[in-house]
Order: sequence, then C-alpha cells, then structure tokens
Amino acid sequence: MDQIIEYIRNNKQRFIDELIEFLKIPSLSAQSRHKADCERAADFVRKQFSQLGLDAQLHPTAGNPIVTARHTSPENKTTVLIYGHYDVQPPEPLDLWTSPPFEPRIEGDNIIARGATDDKGQLFTHIKAVEAHLKTNARLPVNLIFVIEGEEEVAGVHVSEFIRTHRDDLKCDVAVVSDSSQYAPNMPALCYGLRGICAQEIRVQGPKQDLHSGSFGGAVANPVNVLCQMIAQLKDESGKIRIPGFYDDVLPLEQWEREAFAALPWDDEAFRQSLGVKALHGEETYTSIERKWARPTLDVNGIFGGYNGEGAKTIIPAWGGAKITMRLVPNQNPQTISRLFRDFIRKITPPTVEVSFIDHSSCGPVIVKRSAPFVAEALESLRRGFGAEPVFIREGGSIPIVLTIQQELNVHALLLGFGLPDDNAHGPNEKLSLTDFERGIRTSATFFHLCAQK
Amino acid sequence: MDQIIEYIRNNKQRFIDELIEFLKIPSLSAQSRHKADCERAADFVRKQFSQLGLDAQLHPTAGNPIVTARHTSPENKTTVLIYGHYDVQPPEPLDLWTSPPFEPRIEGDNIIARGATDDKGQLFTHIKAVEAHLKTNARLPVNLIFVIEGEEEVAGVHVSEFIRTHRDDLKCDVAVVSDSSQYAPNMPALCYGLRGICAQEIRVQGPKQDLHSGSFGGAVANPVNVLCQMIAQLKDESGKIRIPGFYDDVLPLEQWEREAFAALPWDDEAFRQSLGVKALHGEETYTSIERKWARPTLDVNGIFGGYNGEGAKTIIPAWGGAKITMRLVPNQNPQTISRLFRDFIRKITPPTVEVSFIDHSSCGPVIVKRSAPFVAEALESLRRGFGAEPVFIREGGSIPIVLTIQQELNVHALLLGFGLPDDNAHGPNEKLSLTDFERGIRTSATFFHLCAQK
Repeated sequence: MDQIIEYIRNNKQRFIDELIEFLKIPSLSAQSRHKADCERAADFVRKQFSQLGLDAQLHPTAGNPIVTARHTSPENKTTVLIYGHYDVQPPEPLDLWTSPPFEPRIEGDNIIARGATDDKGQLFTHIKAVEAHLKTNARLPVNLIFVIEGEEEVAGVHVSEFIRTHRDDLKCDVAVVSDSSQYAPNMPALCYGLRGICAQEIRVQGPKQDLHSGSFGGAVANPVNVLCQMIAQLKDESGKIRIPGFYDDVLPLEQWEREAFAALPWDDEAFRQSLGVKALHGEETYTSIERKWARPTLDVNGIFGGYNGEGAKTIIPAWGGAKITMRLVPNQNPQTISRLFRDFIRKITPPTVEVSFIDHSSCGPVIVKRSAPFVAEALESLRRGFGAEPVFIREGGSIPIVLTIQQELNVHALLLGFGLPDDNAHGPNEKLSLTDFERGIRTSATFFHLCAQK
Repeated sequence: MDQIIEYIRNNKQRFIDELIEFLKIPSLSAQSRHKADCERAADFVRKQFSQLGLDAQLHPTAGNPIVTARHTSPENKTTVLIYGHYDVQPPEPLDLWTSPPFEPRIEGDNIIARGATDDKGQLFTHIKAVEAHLKTNARLPVNLIFVIEGEEEVAGVHVSEFIRTHRDDLKCDVAVVSDSSQYAPNMPALCYGLRGICAQEIRVQGPKQDLHSGSFGGAVANPVNVLCQMIAQLKDESGKIRIPGFYDDVLPLEQWEREAFAALPWDDEAFRQSLGVKALHGEETYTSIERKWARPTLDVNGIFGGYNGEGAKTIIPAWGGAKITMRLVPNQNPQTISRLFRDFIRKITPPTVEVSFIDHSSCGPVIVKRSAPFVAEALESLRRGFGAEPVFIREGGSIPIVLTIQQELNVHALLLGFGLPDDNAHGPNEKLSLTDFERGIRTSATFFHLCAQK
C-alpha cells in the first residue's frame, strides 16, 4: 500500500487536471438543453474506465445514459459496487459565484466549480484509487462494479430500474456511495443511517366556489380554517406527532449512539444563530443532533388556499391544501405511515368538508449496523486515508438509491463522504478541498486493499 | 299621489329608454381606459338632474367625479339625501353573457345589462320619482340632496372625503341608499343592519431562509405548522371565536328580530345545496340567517407559505402568512377588535417564531333602530310601492358609505333595496325586473310624499 499511497501523492496534480476537464462539462440534468453535455460527461467517465482497462459501457435510458465499468479477476473473493453520479445541479443564481461555475478555479486548497463535491470530485476519488492500484501492482485486489448515473439531481428513476433489471449482473458483497460529507474538517465519518420520507398532499374542499365572506361568513365552515385545525392536531406543542401508531415501529436510539452523538462537537447556540431562529424547538429529551438525524418528523412544506395577492379579498375560499412530508426513521415503513396519516386525517375531518390526498415521493429509512460486513474495513480506511479517527454519524435526509441498492442487491451500502458540510453542494461557489480529494483517493484505495484481506 | 303614480305608469317606457342610454355607457371604474366613460356617465346623471331644474354639479376628484344635485324650497321642512353610484363592475367573463353587457336587452320582464341593478337602475328610480313629482305638481314636497359617485366598485375613498369636507352642505334629516335588494320576489325589505369588518394579515417568521426538511426537520419549529396551530386556536369547533373580550360589545339579537328572521321563508337544505357544501356549520343556538346577518365571524381569506407548485419540495418554509377578516356586529368596534386580535395572537405565539401584522381595511357595523325617524315612512312607502308587506332584514356584508353617512352627517341611512337577490350584481347577465323598477320609482315618490307629511 505504501507504493500506492506514493503513486497518489506523485500524480495528484494530474488527477486534479483531469478532474478540471470533467468539471468543465456543464452536465445539468435539470435542463434539457444540456442533454448533450450530460452525454459528454457520461462518455468522459466511460473513457476514464476504458483507459484503465476496465470493461466500460454506456447504457442508454429514456433519460441520461448510465455508465458501468467492471473489473473481475478469478483470484478476487470480494466484489465492491461503487455508485456515483456525473450530473450536477443548475448553477443559478450566477451572480453569487465569484468565478464561472464551469470554469474550475483553484483558490488556496480548494477547487471551485459546480460538481466539485457533488458528485464529480467524490466519484473521481474512486476512479483514481483504481488507477493507483493498477499502475502500481498491475492488478486490483477486489472485483469492482461501477454504476455512475446522470439523473441524481432530478430524482430520476432510471438508475433504480437499471439496478432492478440488472440485479444478477450487479451482484456484489458491499456497496460504497461517496455523495455526502465528513462531520467536520479532519473528522471523517461513516454515515450509517438515513431518514426515509413519506410525502403527502391534502386538499380540503368546502363550498363549490369562493363565497363572499360577508354574505355567507358564519353560516358555512371555512375550509382553510378547517385545514389549519386539522394540521394543528397532527403534532403536540413539543413537536411529538399525534397520529396513532406513528411511533410503533421506531427503533429506539441505542445507548452507544446517543453517547457517540453526544461526543461530537456541537453548539446549540451557534446552530440557532446559523438558522436565524429565535429559539430551537423539538421533542423533549432529545438533543438537536438526535432530533435531526434519528427522530421522525412532520413538516408542512407548503400551504395554500384563497387569496394571496396584495391587500385583502373578503372571501371564504372554496378549498385549501397543504404539502406535508414526514421524515421516517428505522424501522418505519412509508406505506404504513401513509395509511396511518390518511386514517387519522379522515378521522379528524369534520363533516362540513371533503378531504382528498395526493401521494408524492416516498422512501424508506436506512440503517447499517456497526457489526455489518465491511464496516470495520471502511472505518480503518477512513482512519488511514484521513489520518484521523472517523466518527459514526447519521443523516436526516433521504438518499433513495441507498435503499434501492440495499433492497435489490441485498448488500449494505456504506456512505463514505469525503466532502465538507460547507462545500455548498447545491449553492454558489461549490468547492472541494484538494487535501480531502487526495485523502478520499487514499481511503478508497485502502478500502479495496482491506476488503481483499478480509 | 294618485296622479304621480299614474304619471309613473304612463312614462314607464320612456324611463326605460333613458335607462338604456345610461346602461350603454361602459363606466368601469376598475379600468383606467374607461375613465372617459365614467366621466360621460357622470355627465349623463348631471344632465338628468339639470333637465329637472335641480342645481346639479360635477365635483372633480383625484378619481372619478362626484355628481351632486340639490332642490331646496323654503316651505319644505324635511331634507332627504340620496346616495348612489354610476360606476359598474367589469363585465368579465364575457363569454358567459348571453348578450353584450353594454347593449341592454329586454327579455320578458327583465332588462339585462351590466349596471342594471348595481346601481344605475336603482339610482334611476329616485331620479324618475323626482321627475314624477315635478311634472305632476310642479314642486317637490321635500328638499333633496343627491350624492352620486363613480368609485363604489373600487372602494374609492373620494366620496368619503367629499362627505367629510362638505358636511355642512350635506346636512339632512335622513339618507336613502338603494344599492341592495328585496328579501325575495314580492318581498320588499328594509335592511336595518350591516356587519362591519376588521381585516388583518399575519406573518409568522421562522428561519431566515427555507431549510432542507431532511437535514433540519425535527430540530427547528416549522413556521407554517406554528401558523396553523395559532389559527386553530382562534375558534372552537362550533365556530365560536376564542379571542378574549371578542364578544364583549356584541349587542344581543332582540327577541323581535329573532322572530322576524324566523318568519322569513328559508330552507337550510336548499341553502346547503346552493353552496355545494357537505354540511352547514356555525355557532350553536343560532339559525343560518342569524349566523350570516347578526353574528361576528373570523375567516381565513387566504393562507400561504412554502412551496405550492407541482409535486413535492422538501423544505421547512422560512415563513407563513394568512389574511384574516373578522365580520363585526353592532356594537363591536374595529379598532378594539384589531387590538384584541393582536394581543391574543402575540399571547399564543411560541418563542420559536416572530409574528408581524398588516392592517387591511376596517369598517364599523351599522344598525338602524326600528324606532328611528323615517323608518315608518320608509316601510309604508315600500308597502305602497310594492303592494306587499315589507320585511326587516340585515345584511352580512359591509357598506362603508352607510357608516360614513351616519357618522359624518349624524343621520340614519335607510337601505331600500329594489333589486332581487338573484340579479347577478357582480356576475354575468346582470338584470333588473322592469316591474321592480317601476315599483322602486313608486316607492321613492311615496317616500318623498310621506316625509313631507311627517
């Protein structure tokens, strides 16, 4: 491994130069006029693999192509699947960028460009780890399958379909996803839990059309008032969700987790100030970290009904609606929660209005046990790659591909994030530390090595 | 009076022809390109008065001109002020009209045109009553002051300013406003009560910007959830308003009023069906008529915050807001209610958010006692004019000019409505019954006569 680490050090500048070429491609999946750029980015990735002698293929989809690359050797016992994505978020608002988003720029230790951390830079670490092994030892210690998609930023479904229909081809022992971040600078992290999501829209219908609030007010239920009364009943004042059965399947936090979270550097007052809120708020007896990583939620994401223009309009609106998402934790099931939510809403709907529902996205939560295969190897790789003790973290958001991999391929997906929380993943001046870039390559190369030792 | 009634009958067709000329003018106050049409309509009204020998004047304002006309005779003891407006609502949507809105058409007993009932047709009844007196007796039995404005449909303030600044010139004994309707066909009504209004907008501010509901959900209060909780606390399940002190100044319905309302033809099931609601709703122990005419309300007119587009957006919105109007009944005061509302909102605002307010329009309620001067004369005029027993009604909406007249001129304003509830005042195919038009002229002429007898 020493020679490999040295190869990485010696070739770092060329790796950066190649990453710059990758970052120059405006592979925006959200904008159809960038479709050709997405295809160029896919081809760039394919060529990277081909040049290393991997069996690289472009798989067309109804959207952007999926790139796979494969290395198999009879003497290898372990197969690692690596997921990444070559598409990027739109760069707008452009005026907040200090340099053009697709003209990568080095400033101090950072490379600044759209896609630097999310996810071109991070997926590149694994490609360069492969190169380091091959150029040093002329072989790879593990079998590898790369699945690199181009619709992550638009929540495209093609990669899930692809994994489902290529289940046998993608058989592996462990999966790695590098699309998140360290806990803090010099504090590499293994993210072992993700929240799921159940997104619902409700619509409360009152009169068949808006009514004059003077002529009719008082004699007819106002569907927006009713909507507010219903939403108010979903949570108590401490934020506890009042839907019967909602918490039944929640896996309680284990003692070691609460201790691990409590040991992380955290400052509630700094957190409060960063959000700009008057006071923090959440379930009693849970810390802020526990609340945002490991407790389920219910949030109104949008509410609407009646008049929202300037001044006043004296109507009783015909209807009101709200978009609501519930974040779920292991072992809650989105279908069960959807049913409990609707049952409760129907139960508290007064006889004066009619309620209807729209299902939006849903996704189950994810948890990887500490004792799961390859967790120890992942931790040791982070330790060696970053020269620092890794921490166990969870993430409050949802990454649907992780659950797809776990369910369809029946393996654990390890979330090894090499970026930083302030890398501006979807914002202006997205960046990646070049030191973290090198550490990521080292971590990936070490992981391949350690998996082979197992 | 018999000769006067006969004059009206004999000249009815000419009155209709003149009304048609008036209705042809598209005097839309809401659209600046119709400013010249509004001025034409004002001049049409002025000429009507001049031709009768009244002292008619056009008073320019920053908006549309106000027409006044005056008749004074030393032997008259009583001065009657008549308010009306020559501007009309926009006619859109045009495709729902069966004939062009400014090409008046007679169909059966109805004249169909924008402004037929609101308010050109109704204000014309008083002009023609004046004519009937003058052409029959060469004199008027009362002094008259007409105030005809052109900004009623846009809630213009110029007429209120005009009344305030011409208080002495407009001194009178009683005022008449004909801009409402009968209770039902052949059931003329004296509207003796109007609800007032207090319109407030609240804004609940949480984090300084929208937050990712995955990364932050559970650890921070959601201002839209909070807004809903606050709105839910404003009313109990029966619709009773929970703001402390809200009902303190409410004048209870008198026994005779409840009996009078109960005696009116009314069908809750037909009412329910006409609104298209699953069930009616309102304060217990009050009938639908009482709820909409004589009880105060609190309605959300509009609510907004977060994402309202297609699909889901997983955010905790930075803020949420709502427009709320409270309809007030005698003797509630809009300023007092505004203060009670804000005090209560502030009291129930949790420490996690900041709340701010915007004041929209407000207007006090109106009540005219049965024993007030000229009420008996008004009832008798309706009885003779319509050949039917008039009923006492209230109206749930607010007509600010009525309060202005009462407060600035210190007289009672009597609401004599000659239209019908289904005249489509602001809708397509607005109409006025020609029979009611003639009855209105008879009523007005009789009222002048009876006022002189007093």
